[in-house]
Amino acid sequence: MLPQRVLEEIQTNRQRYVAELKDFLRIPSVSTDSEYDKNTQESAKWVVNKLKNLGFQTELRETAGHPVVCGHLVSDTSLPTLLIYGHYDVQPPDPLDEWITPPFSPDIRDGYIYARGATDNKGQCLTYFEAMEAILAVSGKLPLNVKVLVEGEEEIGSPNLGPFLQENLNELNTDFIAISDGSQFAPDIPAITYGLRGLSYLEVGVQGPRFDLHSGSFGGLVANPVQALSAMLTQLKNEDGTVAIPNFYNDVRELEPRERQEMADLPVDEVALKKYLGVDQLVGEPDCSIVECKTARPTLDVNGIWGGFAGEGAKTIIPAKAGAKVSMRLVPNQRAATINELFKNFVSSIAPPGVKIQISEMHGSDPVLVERDQPAVQAAARAIEFGFGKSPVYIREGGSIPIVGLFQEMLGCKSILLMGWGSPDDGAHSPNERFSLEDFHRGILSTAALYYALEESFEG
Amino acid sequence: MLPQRVLEEIQTNRQRYVAELKDFLRIPSVSTDSEYDKNTQESAKWVVNKLKNLGFQTELRETAGHPVVCGHLVSDTSLPTLLIYGHYDVQPPDPLDEWITPPFSPDIRDGYIYARGATDNKGQCLTYFEAMEAILAVSGKLPLNVKVLVEGEEEIGSPNLGPFLQENLNELNTDFIAISDGSQFAPDIPAITYGLRGLSYLEVGVQGPRFDLHSGSFGGLVANPVQALSAMLTQLKNEDGTVAIPNFYNDVRELEPRERQEMADLPVDEVALKKYLGVDQLVGEPDCSIVECKTARPTLDVNGIWGGFAGEGAKTIIPAKAGAKVSMRLVPNQRAATINELFKNFVSSIAPPGVKIQISEMHGSDPVLVERDQPAVQAAARAIEFGFGKSPVYIREGGSIPIVGLFQEMLGCKSILLMGWGSPDDGAHSPNERFSLEDFHRGILSTAALYYALEESFEG
Repeated sequence: MLPQRVLEEIQTNRQRYVAELKDFLRIPSVSTDSEYDKNTQESAKWVVNKLKNLGFQTELRETAGHPVVCGHLVSDTSLPTLLIYGHYDVQPPDPLDEWITPPFSPDIRDGYIYARGATDNKGQCLTYFEAMEAILAVSGKLPLNVKVLVEGEEEIGSPNLGPFLQENLNELNTDFIAISDGSQFAPDIPAITYGLRGLSYLEVGVQGPRFDLHSGSFGGLVANPVQALSAMLTQLKNEDGTVAIPNFYNDVRELEPRERQEMADLPVDEVALKKYLGVDQLVGEPDCSIVECKTARPTLDVNGIWGGFAGEGAKTIIPAKAGAKVSMRLVPNQRAATINELFKNFVSSIAPPGVKIQISEMHGSDPVLVERDQPAVQAAARAIEFGFGKSPVYIREGGSIPIVGLFQEMLGCKSILLMGWGSPDDGAHSPNERFSLEDFHRGILSTAALYYALEESFEG
Repeated sequence: MLPQRVLEEIQTNRQRYVAELKDFLRIPSVSTDSEYDKNTQESAKWVVNKLKNLGFQTELRETAGHPVVCGHLVSDTSLPTLLIYGHYDVQPPDPLDEWITPPFSPDIRDGYIYARGATDNKGQCLTYFEAMEAILAVSGKLPLNVKVLVEGEEEIGSPNLGPFLQENLNELNTDFIAISDGSQFAPDIPAITYGLRGLSYLEVGVQGPRFDLHSGSFGGLVANPVQALSAMLTQLKNEDGTVAIPNFYNDVRELEPRERQEMADLPVDEVALKKYLGVDQLVGEPDCSIVECKTARPTLDVNGIWGGFAGEGAKTIIPAKAGAKVSMRLVPNQRAATINELFKNFVSSIAPPGVKIQISEMHGSDPVLVERDQPAVQAAARAIEFGFGKSPVYIREGGSIPIVGLFQEMLGCKSILLMGWGSPDDGAHSPNERFSLEDFHRGILSTAALYYALEESFEG
């Protein structure tokens, strides 16, 4: 489906695409930390410039937080329109001392490019732009109209994108949406993702005495906020790995038999996975396969905890305060707002005596399901087969992409294509995040093919 | 018992003593943190200079850690000898942002001097030196021989003092030992402490996956080290406040009826205490009074916890590691070595699947009991009555002074005098640590009286 000349153009420019990716990755656009605000802005401008060079009408659009990059390139008003979504922000790079090379000095080793944002999402997002560049270089126009929306707050839960969409519904009207922020099922097993988990993210603060106390003078008499917090966190999960918050599972849509079968058919190398993770044992719910546990079942994790003295040596105190960040991954048809309430009610109800509790909602998103049996999804499957040389599997993903639920609801678009070129072992959110240069290339090929396939599939 | 001219000398020099205390407090001698090593050394030298000015033969004595200040001043070999113990090191000042004035810029407000080390132990230690200065100024000689031992590692558990004592047993031979590191029972209720709790301090490390994981990709499949740690910490105590480690209470000597009665007679203002601590409710073992809970019962506290992301924003990870510092206060006749073993065995036995545990011993000390019905203790009671205008109560203290057990065992000295001039609400180990200037003055008076009273009480 891809003209031979476009294919050749992409082959010819491989090295240049990598050089451009390096430029993009050098910008430490850590949206969660206001110290990096200037860099985050710089990252947005990098995207604007790239789009301008492709001939896009594009600009930075202010929000209450980091700006959104919007752009469009009209090929022919009779053709269908594709909206491409990506994000130019990245996760914090901590813990810094575990990076082999610095997170914002991209380094190529053994066919991978290592940097924060390599796979999540700069590398994957860039494939969509390089594919357009190749098509435009060869034929002067795209086979369909393209709109671009690249935000800078994905890693903090896209708090300002809902309002932005609401204010720009007409401008963003589209036939298809491509989300660049997924991944393959496994290396060399490309996938179309038809489900995403949602997220409820909260912070629990515990206040004990009004200042740190000498544990000799007061130990045995004053409630310890770290121990109070530990006790509450422990009560959030049952020993079998299920979440213990009452009514947590009420709205969970059970998997259909064909979904369980598909998940069972996916190749999972448990030995290799444990080795990769460095754990002796996986833990999951009873009677759930590995794939089900990590993509189709809700769960709860403590993402961070703090309290008292964590420095060198031994300080004998009863800490005044402790806190933890707790997040839950949700599945259809759970709702983040409902789960937040259940969490707050339960934690408040189990607070031990002698301490005060404060719970704040950080961010959240609802889980997503996309209809698989539609022409646009089939077109995406053909494009992936062209780029990767094999048909994709259909999967659900454990992570959350808050924007997808918003697109579904606000833009009324049901043709949402979730296809990632990276691999689950790329280390998104971890030290030494990476992206395979081969996947980068196959991603550009697949994306180029997608533009043609979508146009061919369009039924108006 | 104190010559009138000595009393007058002490009254006359009150302001100068405070100025000297300020000098001592300006030195940030944080022994737990190697970044402060130079300051810790400077603090030791300050003590040496002070003693030299009194006419002591004194010097810094090297150990494997911070040096010990040793000195002696012989008055007459036929007189008894008193060994004075103190420490020139202080606790870390964190959390820094809770100090009203900087921890190493002593500030006087409302009759208190505020600084790290004000009460623990620089201010209290200094009373012994200023009292000698006054006596020497008036009469040219002390009523007994004095040895001084001021160490720099009390706040890290005095790891090198045992070996130092062992190597210098003859030099440190003494009739009485005065420990300057206690406190009154409450403001204006001076006390003689005849019991101290011991300490077992350990660190628990938990290793989950080999790096931080994306909680979307792996949540529900991989054991979370923070949750594993929380679960273990929670199992260390029962809901009624008792410690849940098997056999933990085996060696606890139950209180005698007269001790329970004395503790019941001590005035405790529970309402004021709760207000001071900023808690709605005290927690303690069933059927134990407040005084028993905090001085005569063993307990367990988490002194610090860490793991995962504690920064600004919301990072969606399963942390690779978590850790906690845990300490237990011990009472006669528990032994730190035994409790350490019980702790390690129990925690190892409850480690959840999917994580690796590492437990290290930080430091410890055995609890102490001193015989109250001996002439030296009665002499100390008279000295306190002179300085404070009231008889002391007999108490046990919740904190640990590791050196006391060593003195008892290694120097074979049973006349160990534990008298503190500070108050339990001075905030030792807390932000805004302070010492009442009135207590500083009464401490100098009591100490001066003690030198005479001990000599009078001595039976050879």
